[in-house]
Amino acid sequence: MAYLRAVQIPSRLIEAAVDQMATLPGVGRRTALRLVLNMLARDEERVRDFAEAMIAMREGVKPCSVCHNPTEEEVCNLCANPHRDGATVCVVEDVRDLLALESMGEYRGLYHVLGGVISPMDGVGPADLNVETLVSRAATTEVKEVILALPASMEGDTTAFYLAKKLAESEVLLTALARGVAVGEALQYADEATLSSSLLNRLPYKG
Amino acid sequence: MAYLRAVQIPSRLIEAAVDQMATLPGVGRRTALRLVLNMLARDEERVRDFAEAMIAMREGVKPCSVCHNPTEEEVCNLCANPHRDGATVCVVEDVRDLLALESMGEYRGLYHVLGGVISPMDGVGPADLNVETLVSRAATTEVKEVILALPASMEGDTTAFYLAKKLAESEVLLTALARGVAVGEALQYADEATLSSSLLNRLPYKG
Repeated sequence: MAYLRAVQIPSRLIEAAVDQMATLPGVGRRTALRLVLNMLARDEERVRDFAEAMIAMREGVKPCSVCHNPTEEEVCNLCANPHRDGATVCVVEDVRDLLALESMGEYRGLYHVLGGVISPMDGVGPADLNVETLVSRAATTEVKEVILALPASMEGDTTAFYLAKKLAESEVLLTALARGVAVGEALQYADEATLSSSLLNRLPYKG
Repeated sequence: MAYLRAVQIPSRLIEAAVDQMATLPGVGRRTALRLVLNMLARDEERVRDFAEAMIAMREGVKPCSVCHNPTEEEVCNLCANPHRDGATVCVVEDVRDLLALESMGEYRGLYHVLGGVISPMDGVGPADLNVETLVSRAATTEVKEVILALPASMEGDTTAFYLAKKLAESEVLLTALARGVAVGEALQYADEATLSSSLLNRLPYKG
């Protein structure tokens, strides 16, 4: 990193591109320079394609009006799918968790993308999340169960606790993903909280 | 990665942006999705600024007509600087190596940015590098010494060997960076080739 501070990059335009590239999460100035030089080595048209894909994506993609999953339509293809079970709503932090659950291919219900978890350290409060629409959905007669599939972190737990309070007046069954020893994980490497949870929530053995 | 193959990202525009982001070196599809979702969460104007910085950089930055260092002018600010010593030309692989040498603040000569090293595995041959302009520069009476500051790899050595052959007919003194035990490095951890080189090229002790 040191040399990037000590020596000015010889071109203002490269400097500006590095500044922008370094706004990406997990990209430091050194990596940003590497990425920008890669851009510089491309045909102009390919750089234009790259840039225009970002703009088109940002302009064309909006949150689904029901579940906040990013979509190009008013309602996303999951919410619009008549074969999905509208009685179950699974609450996830963001679309990556939704994709992980979808990849399993077993869940047939709908989702609700919160758009984050409560994290005072990062300045994220309940008002920044899609909570009101979840409460409205839970108030409909169609929804019978809300599954909390939030991260197993302090922020995830805080958010789950907050949502449980907000949903207390609705009639829905509130459930949460099971916490336990992962499939294929050695018992001795599981952390205490996970081990404790898997013991506490032990199930009848089905062979 | 598995879930990205198994599940289609619900929006063509996000998919296209992920495809583009994944063309960056070292960025896989999973990371690309994370970066694209970060873009999606930004104000439209910030995404536009990001995209336009890349296009402006690619359009406005050209190789210096003398040394191929990226610049917005016809000749870069190093080549145009009358206080630099035009008798010495240091050959580097790319601008990052140039910046590393500049950060030292001790080298007062000029540079020649090759734009890569010979690497048959990556399909990079001598014709892809800025060799002809180096030969022309070395043929002028002004240049007295060409310093090869190429990477200490098989590709770097191949390139150095090739350049030495191409410059054999010129009058310049051809030198290369010293290879040896790094300052602060423990002898026992130096690899054999480095240790051997530092022994072979041992210097009179100056205390």
